[in-house]
Amino acid sequence: MRVDARINRDRILDTAEEVFGAGGASASTEEVARLAGVGIATVFRHFPTKAILLEAVLVRRFDRLRAQAEALLDAADPGPAFLDFFAQVVADATSKIAIGEALLDAGGNGDDATQSSQKLRETVGILLKRAQEAGSIRADVELPEVYALLVATSQARLETEVKERMLAIVFDGLTA
Amino acid sequence: MRVDARINRDRILDTAEEVFGAGGASASTEEVARLAGVGIATVFRHFPTKAILLEAVLVRRFDRLRAQAEALLDAADPGPAFLDFFAQVVADATSKIAIGEALLDAGGNGDDATQSSQKLRETVGILLKRAQEAGSIRADVELPEVYALLVATSQARLETEVKERMLAIVFDGLTA
Repeated sequence: MRVDARINRDRILDTAEEVFGAGGASASTEEVARLAGVGIATVFRHFPTKAILLEAVLVRRFDRLRAQAEALLDAADPGPAFLDFFAQVVADATSKIAIGEALLDAGGNGDDATQSSQKLRETVGILLKRAQEAGSIRADVELPEVYALLVATSQARLETEVKERMLAIVFDGLTA
Repeated sequence: MRVDARINRDRILDTAEEVFGAGGASASTEEVARLAGVGIATVFRHFPTKAILLEAVLVRRFDRLRAQAEALLDAADPGPAFLDFFAQVVADATSKIAIGEALLDAGGNGDDATQSSQKLRETVGILLKRAQEAGSIRADVELPEVYALLVATSQARLETEVKERMLAIVFDGLTA
């Protein structure tokens, strides 16, 4: 891909993430093109359908989170690193859910996003193990229930303050 | 309402709760009539639309949970009573979610169910306060975040064992 094509592609993805993250299924590809400063034809050249565009946005988002989780594997203090990452995923979730709803509405199956999300889960599992080895997180919890809590608390639609107080309860339960 | 009409009505509600709780939006009112041993005309005489039937099922369910919560207000040990009730709501949730999805699919707005669910929330609030006064539940948590956790963990689709292990973490966080 030529440099200017790649720049356009990235700008379309950035804009789509913002537009669909805020507007969900009611946002439009036309709006993305307008705000990204490209023609609608350019959007469709990169992403032939709305579903393909939204799937690419979600994949990039999961991959970005995974890169952040991987960077934390070297953290000096794995316990706080794990809990901070947990809180960040939950804080980020509202717009991710909106994009996921837009994807379903556009007829996408979310298969690629599911694969990326699976890889994120594996990295979170390693991060959890490090935090347990460091003695910060209870040794008797396992990834399935911890990840279930991450997903459940991510999906709650709440004011920021209530969300933080809810997480404080969960973190207290996770802490050794 | 005559006695036999009331018996029919209750049987239809019981059957609808079972059928839609298992089948969600793919279940049918015809199936309910057949399994309840009444004609479809009888179902529609009591519940003119599928949405009205499903709303009645949900309202009854919330009201039943509230009655159970109210009965627990006199429990000798309010702490375990609160946590047991929390666990029961979560265990019951899968079929409730299926009925709620069928209701939305049938074009229902869920207003009556929302009202009943609001009353349940108030009773859970009293139950929580009793458990806090008894010193079993942390004094610094409040109903919004506790109820948010109840809803979030209820909505998770998980194997029973993972759900129980997830609840164990939450309960540990809630315990004083």
